[in-house]
Amino acid sequence: MANMSRRDMLKMSMIGAGTLALSSVNANAKEAKDVKFDEEWDVVVVGSGFAGLSAGVTAAKKGNKVLIIEKMGRVGGNSVINGGVFGVWGNDFQEKEGIKDSKELYIKDILKAGGGLNHPELVETLADRVRDAYQLTKDCGAKYIMLKLHGGHSVPRGALAESDSGAGIIRPMSKFFQDIDGCELRRKCKLDHIITDESGKVIGVEVRDEYQFDKDAQNDDKENTSGTTKFIKAKKGVVLASGGFSRDKHFRKAQDPRIADDLDSTNHPGATAGVLLEALKVGAEPVQVSWIQSLPLSSPDEKGYGVSSAFTHESFRFGIIVSPKTGKRYGNELANRKIQADYEFKSKNEDGVYLLSMCDSKAAAEMLPEKLEKVQKVGIVKKFDSLEDIAKEYNMPLDEFKKTVANYNQYVKDEKDPEFGKNLSKDITKGYDFSVAPFYVSRVIPKVHHTMGGVNITPKAEVISADTNKPIPGLYAAGEITGGVHGAVRLGSMAIADCLTFGMIAGENF
Amino acid sequence: MANMSRRDMLKMSMIGAGTLALSSVNANAKEAKDVKFDEEWDVVVVGSGFAGLSAGVTAAKKGNKVLIIEKMGRVGGNSVINGGVFGVWGNDFQEKEGIKDSKELYIKDILKAGGGLNHPELVETLADRVRDAYQLTKDCGAKYIMLKLHGGHSVPRGALAESDSGAGIIRPMSKFFQDIDGCELRRKCKLDHIITDESGKVIGVEVRDEYQFDKDAQNDDKENTSGTTKFIKAKKGVVLASGGFSRDKHFRKAQDPRIADDLDSTNHPGATAGVLLEALKVGAEPVQVSWIQSLPLSSPDEKGYGVSSAFTHESFRFGIIVSPKTGKRYGNELANRKIQADYEFKSKNEDGVYLLSMCDSKAAAEMLPEKLEKVQKVGIVKKFDSLEDIAKEYNMPLDEFKKTVANYNQYVKDEKDPEFGKNLSKDITKGYDFSVAPFYVSRVIPKVHHTMGGVNITPKAEVISADTNKPIPGLYAAGEITGGVHGAVRLGSMAIADCLTFGMIAGENF
Repeated sequence: MANMSRRDMLKMSMIGAGTLALSSVNANAKEAKDVKFDEEWDVVVVGSGFAGLSAGVTAAKKGNKVLIIEKMGRVGGNSVINGGVFGVWGNDFQEKEGIKDSKELYIKDILKAGGGLNHPELVETLADRVRDAYQLTKDCGAKYIMLKLHGGHSVPRGALAESDSGAGIIRPMSKFFQDIDGCELRRKCKLDHIITDESGKVIGVEVRDEYQFDKDAQNDDKENTSGTTKFIKAKKGVVLASGGFSRDKHFRKAQDPRIADDLDSTNHPGATAGVLLEALKVGAEPVQVSWIQSLPLSSPDEKGYGVSSAFTHESFRFGIIVSPKTGKRYGNELANRKIQADYEFKSKNEDGVYLLSMCDSKAAAEMLPEKLEKVQKVGIVKKFDSLEDIAKEYNMPLDEFKKTVANYNQYVKDEKDPEFGKNLSKDITKGYDFSVAPFYVSRVIPKVHHTMGGVNITPKAEVISADTNKPIPGLYAAGEITGGVHGAVRLGSMAIADCLTFGMIAGENF
Repeated sequence: MANMSRRDMLKMSMIGAGTLALSSVNANAKEAKDVKFDEEWDVVVVGSGFAGLSAGVTAAKKGNKVLIIEKMGRVGGNSVINGGVFGVWGNDFQEKEGIKDSKELYIKDILKAGGGLNHPELVETLADRVRDAYQLTKDCGAKYIMLKLHGGHSVPRGALAESDSGAGIIRPMSKFFQDIDGCELRRKCKLDHIITDESGKVIGVEVRDEYQFDKDAQNDDKENTSGTTKFIKAKKGVVLASGGFSRDKHFRKAQDPRIADDLDSTNHPGATAGVLLEALKVGAEPVQVSWIQSLPLSSPDEKGYGVSSAFTHESFRFGIIVSPKTGKRYGNELANRKIQADYEFKSKNEDGVYLLSMCDSKAAAEMLPEKLEKVQKVGIVKKFDSLEDIAKEYNMPLDEFKKTVANYNQYVKDEKDPEFGKNLSKDITKGYDFSVAPFYVSRVIPKVHHTMGGVNITPKAEVISADTNKPIPGLYAAGEITGGVHGAVRLGSMAIADCLTFGMIAGENF
């Protein structure tokens, strides 16, 4: 039968698991008539992050029986550990602070970062509907507490979720979803295969219940044989919302050999390419899969996503990034993520030093006090009383460093950065320079963060067939498993926007 | 059954074609036991270009019954229309001309152009075996006539095939192959599906005999229903050597939306993504599929590949590229293809003018006389007696242009280009400046030329499974359908090297 995987062979060799093996054979042959479905739902959603919950809630509100499957033991994938900043143009915080923004500027910023690789119709759709997605999260009970700015955005437009993390959106949405009659969010349930009928229409999925994710497996889709196979019918459709593959050491390295196996990732251990690869087997069209983003806001002094970005977002915006080797600034602290990651890697690889991101006490006051305490407690941010102390700690040439700070402070006054073109307008800096002790410093290094490519979709979140160039009936996708929205570079705060908006659009199809 | 394509549906609806429909169903289900094979061979090779013929000849020389299928009416795909320059380090022409080259320098040049995306083990293998592939073509009767230099190479290392085209290699190799008893090269025979057995091993192909390629179909894998379905068993394996997708308007645009449908391509009309997409359905791992190269050596004054490169190779090396708007040089005439294509697009899109590539009569004498005549006859190269005439023809500021020429001629004398860092060592320029009339000028624009990405392979040309990260038993690939050898940028003359070397390696497996 078609492309039987090594895992299936293992299954078949499991003595006593004859029925398992048999069902697996049928599933792989994907002959609908041979499949005895164990369950039946209107809609099956794969993944319980921003995209999955947005699709699930939207479809459920329309009266559909929705099953969301999540392979991990906990809900929310990367969404629940991310920074919780949601890029929305014309949001309530911008209105309060009198910041002018527009759909056109939003699109312009996304396309500029995308380097011409964005699919324009998807960006247009995102801009048209992102405000609806923002409202959807509020209807589910999400609360937002302040406005943030990420590199590459012309104006601050990031709404920060309560609890300063994506959990502030995931928790209320998953509760909202699970409170709806006839819907279920099932953990430890992993997709193995997508089932199509004879016309090529997607009619269900083969999954494993009670699946035990093995974080030691380089890619759980290969070595891991846990769980019990089940066939689930999806009467109206299947939504793929399983995220990206930043933790898939084999697949990410095949795309970009520069990504060493030991390069850390901000992602949760389950971020692998399995579902994407199953989609390709039923003819989904791959798009820009080799574009992988590393997050320049990360710290070498903690594992994974950690808490560094809570500090570095502010220190990039209000402070400076300095090389301890030269005592000089290294680049535009508000450049897009690719540019910043490239120069952080350069400093580490060529000069052998981690760049230092630093800000003064005025900037630090922009952080939630408990967060400022946290980053110091875990040891990724250090506090200093003087420039001398900083230079001493990092063996930095003091005179050069003092000159760098003096110059930068003048640039802030002038609202102009002649060296690197950082946007220093009052809207951005609030007039903060680098002058009032105590000072806060963090070492920075990029970590594998987001995979821009994936399956090709229409503006209605329908998965496009590479055979027909038309939608594959019954198959939808949203979020990081799709490609084309962000092009070459995803801007900070745009993952939440992308996932929630296209998840909502996917759900509207049912 | 698995991902039945719209074409299959059409087939099934063809009344009276009941057997056809039935066989098609079985093939799609890919249950080996259901397939009644019409033919049996040791090895089936898909594609008759450099990679396919190299694999076919190598396997045939080892005593295998080999079938090469070619979907088009003529043999050789892009290979037979290309420039015929084969990049081989330490070749006989280099020895004659006393040019020092090495495996290490060869690898260094490839990796530099690849921007860190090359798969190092594949580059290493290419460098190890490329000289064997060069010898293989000579054993088949190919002849080489002179040494060429392409941008991005540290030294001239391109052996130019007789007839100044890839046909000089393809013709003798296809004759050599077809003269071997028990082997066949079958035209108008198209791959529809790859057939696997229950273990996932590739055991054959579903093809269409008497297939009529329709060059009006945007992608012949979709609209085209011509031909008669046949099932062909491959006892030892299938080699995919079907090339790239530069003419696949939908798929190339999905990867890079900047590639407008009306942007011309140097490729033959059959260069589509069909076979690559079938490989993904049996679990082949995609690599760097979004990296697409446009050829900066092309002319807006002829269609397709044409004959322009015969002139521009020499005018890039020995001459200058000037903007008619400013009369100034625009960049390094020997930069890699991406850099050159980027600035040609920039001039056209931002300044609204085609850049001019020009050389003097000393440089023109490096071309085969009949070629120099040809490019003038088809009207892509114009001949001028003076700088004044050139400036007049293209409305170029004469004084600036004269200054540009004077400066360049001084740089050649100094063997140093302070403006753009073009390599002007005597090895490269032979001391030719831009001074002796008549002068020759061609307008230049990039055309879609090569797709760097494709399926992932091992150094033995085995296709890697995305399910197991190990080779898919019975499936091999070589040439443009694979990814990882060239990374971000393929250097000129390295397509022939890649295709012939990995084709040969694929054939050695049987």
